[in-house]
Amino acid sequence: MSTEKNQTEQNQTVQEGLSGETADLTYMSLDKFEEATEEVAKVTQETKLVFSEYYSGITGNKVYFKPENMQYTGAYKVRGAYYKISTLSEEAKSHGLITASAGNHAQGVAYAAKLAGIKAVIVMPNTTPLIKVNRTRSYGAEVVLYGNVFDEACAYALELAKEHNYTFVHPFDDLDVAIGQGTIAMEIIKELPTVDYILVPIGGGGLCTGVATLAKLLNPKIRIIGVEPAGANCMQESLKAGHVVELPEVNTIADGTAVKHPGEKIFPYVQKYVDDIITVEDSELIVAFLDMVENHKMIVENSGLLTVAALKHLNVQKKKIVSILSGGNMDVITMSSVVQHGLIQRDRIFTVSVLLPDKPGELAKVSALLAEEKGNVIKLEHNQFISINRNAAVELRITLEAEGTDHKNRIVQALYDQGYRPKVVKAKGVYSD
Amino acid sequence: MSTEKNQTEQNQTVQEGLSGETADLTYMSLDKFEEATEEVAKVTQETKLVFSEYYSGITGNKVYFKPENMQYTGAYKVRGAYYKISTLSEEAKSHGLITASAGNHAQGVAYAAKLAGIKAVIVMPNTTPLIKVNRTRSYGAEVVLYGNVFDEACAYALELAKEHNYTFVHPFDDLDVAIGQGTIAMEIIKELPTVDYILVPIGGGGLCTGVATLAKLLNPKIRIIGVEPAGANCMQESLKAGHVVELPEVNTIADGTAVKHPGEKIFPYVQKYVDDIITVEDSELIVAFLDMVENHKMIVENSGLLTVAALKHLNVQKKKIVSILSGGNMDVITMSSVVQHGLIQRDRIFTVSVLLPDKPGELAKVSALLAEEKGNVIKLEHNQFISINRNAAVELRITLEAEGTDHKNRIVQALYDQGYRPKVVKAKGVYSD
Repeated sequence: MSTEKNQTEQNQTVQEGLSGETADLTYMSLDKFEEATEEVAKVTQETKLVFSEYYSGITGNKVYFKPENMQYTGAYKVRGAYYKISTLSEEAKSHGLITASAGNHAQGVAYAAKLAGIKAVIVMPNTTPLIKVNRTRSYGAEVVLYGNVFDEACAYALELAKEHNYTFVHPFDDLDVAIGQGTIAMEIIKELPTVDYILVPIGGGGLCTGVATLAKLLNPKIRIIGVEPAGANCMQESLKAGHVVELPEVNTIADGTAVKHPGEKIFPYVQKYVDDIITVEDSELIVAFLDMVENHKMIVENSGLLTVAALKHLNVQKKKIVSILSGGNMDVITMSSVVQHGLIQRDRIFTVSVLLPDKPGELAKVSALLAEEKGNVIKLEHNQFISINRNAAVELRITLEAEGTDHKNRIVQALYDQGYRPKVVKAKGVYSD
Repeated sequence: MSTEKNQTEQNQTVQEGLSGETADLTYMSLDKFEEATEEVAKVTQETKLVFSEYYSGITGNKVYFKPENMQYTGAYKVRGAYYKISTLSEEAKSHGLITASAGNHAQGVAYAAKLAGIKAVIVMPNTTPLIKVNRTRSYGAEVVLYGNVFDEACAYALELAKEHNYTFVHPFDDLDVAIGQGTIAMEIIKELPTVDYILVPIGGGGLCTGVATLAKLLNPKIRIIGVEPAGANCMQESLKAGHVVELPEVNTIADGTAVKHPGEKIFPYVQKYVDDIITVEDSELIVAFLDMVENHKMIVENSGLLTVAALKHLNVQKKKIVSILSGGNMDVITMSSVVQHGLIQRDRIFTVSVLLPDKPGELAKVSALLAEEKGNVIKLEHNQFISINRNAAVELRITLEAEGTDHKNRIVQALYDQGYRPKVVKAKGVYSD
């Protein structure tokens, strides 16, 4: 079966790649990328670059976004899956695909298989939200729920693959999949041949491998910067070590890139073609989310925001920079929580606590003062019995909507000037702790 | 001064228009639309149509969006303002523009004036959020805060216009402004010549007039449907009456289209060229907001969502339909509130109240049951002294995250089966009442 042969070839290439400096990185060739670009164009939406006046202004560069959040299925994943299918023999196609994923890869594989008219089985952990299960089913895939964590689902998928002769489509550690993802670079360079920097998010490294390899093959002057969550920087650590290492744990809200162990097969390409890695903290992603909503009216998921947040780290001027927005599949409940944390970070919402004497009229006084300062009360907690001091016996905990830090400071100052001893406390959203 | 002459001409045209069936609607000509298209292209982003698999699927049509929410300034308004400027004499340009607006029109005028290199003064009510003031200033406009409501700001702007020879740019009741907005139709028809229906939001009627007039001049077969908030249907009422009428009040979350009195000058064009009006309830806008976020990863403001919600009202099949998304400038605090209401509408969040005996261990029992049913608790209120019946003395009010209506019903049923008497109560978001 040609798939297996293919697989063996890949492994050999990689073994060589890992074994020393004479790594033969010829598998991912310009010819294959050209072929993939043609294939992928059949099933994808052309996501045109979006010029960002806002980020260009604050960074002193010309910043563009490649909005793969607007791609069919809400992420770039359909590219790799569809190209992978095109490399399969008719026999392999007749058996179908299998993968394990609870994220964008599941939908990408399901969608690509549907368009190619072949079967897809997606193994998801039992804990996968019904919404993701349903969305994957809506693309015509058979969803199998198995195991409590991803690794169990993945092991079961490999078992089923063997049993039914399904082709297992790895989310990132597959050179054909990486070639498919790399077609993004072809589109970027075609639309903006003068691009200086491409920023690409890294989870397991598949997207980054495809983009970096193709970009460098076309034009070695283009700098490729991988961006990882600070709490899941497996590629950065692996590059430092000179070989793939596994992180003891990952901790980030960027769930699509929360990977402990980057791909083995793709690693030599990353070593050769990626110029640098930037890491980004979760709190920066929240700022980036709101900035994208306000300035570009787009929803970008946390992993897709890595390259947006990284713009502020890239210490260059007057360059043409493309940040790849890898996806936009953020659950609305997560979105609601991110928005609220963002509002708190910006002092658009804050909570202040004051102690009041336990007698009538005190609440009215504070309310009048807040009205005067145009602070909009959104939540009020009036807690009695705080102390036995009758002059400071009641805690009033007020959550207010303000226009930002200056306005917040004015309100707090006004409380202070009136003799209250205001204390700003951690504001709470509905869902947050 | 040529502006004044221009203005007089317009008034005459309109007077004729209003005076009877022989209305001379020649002012808005194909020539002017062509000229405007060229002008407007200099300063706008090409907003390509976005095909909607989701809405095509549920309506049985081919649905496309014209995403003017992605336009510079986040709305289409820059089109009308920039074309208006191009019609002014050099002398008028040297004096500059003035308008009154706290919304998208303010930013559109400011941005267009900046690009044309002329002065712009924007009068905003004192109550305008600082954020909108700052954003308008960031486009280089002079912002004057005056009056407590829009009408006062507007009267003052007209006064200043007289005093300083500024050209007053009306947000909708100006034929040149309407021609500028109408360039959207040129782009739609160029990209999709086979379009059958164009859905366009109506506030004062400027956008609708431009789009309808140009579309019909190009191809009378194209059907133009105006969409208004049910709580601000001034155009629908005016069309019924056969003349412009003023609504006693408006009540809608679609603030950009919350207009009591449509334009007088543009009205004859609406009478002639708009085929029908659809009205939409606020609750439908919340559904549409979430649908757009989930399926298209785009933020669309409430007025822009009118044409999305209207897709479900348009009782046709197998047609090519373009919904114009007029803007995306939704404040993040509003967005947070819309998202939460949407989650409640979808039963992704709900609140249930149960009465418990006032003794230790009862909370543990309910918690275990909820865990069993995979209901995620996001808020808990434990209220004692509800009644003097010791067997139902404590009210537990639980706000839960669920996967939708089925899941919610399963949880409520499980509580019932265990002998509790669950009552579903109105869920509360952070900001909502």
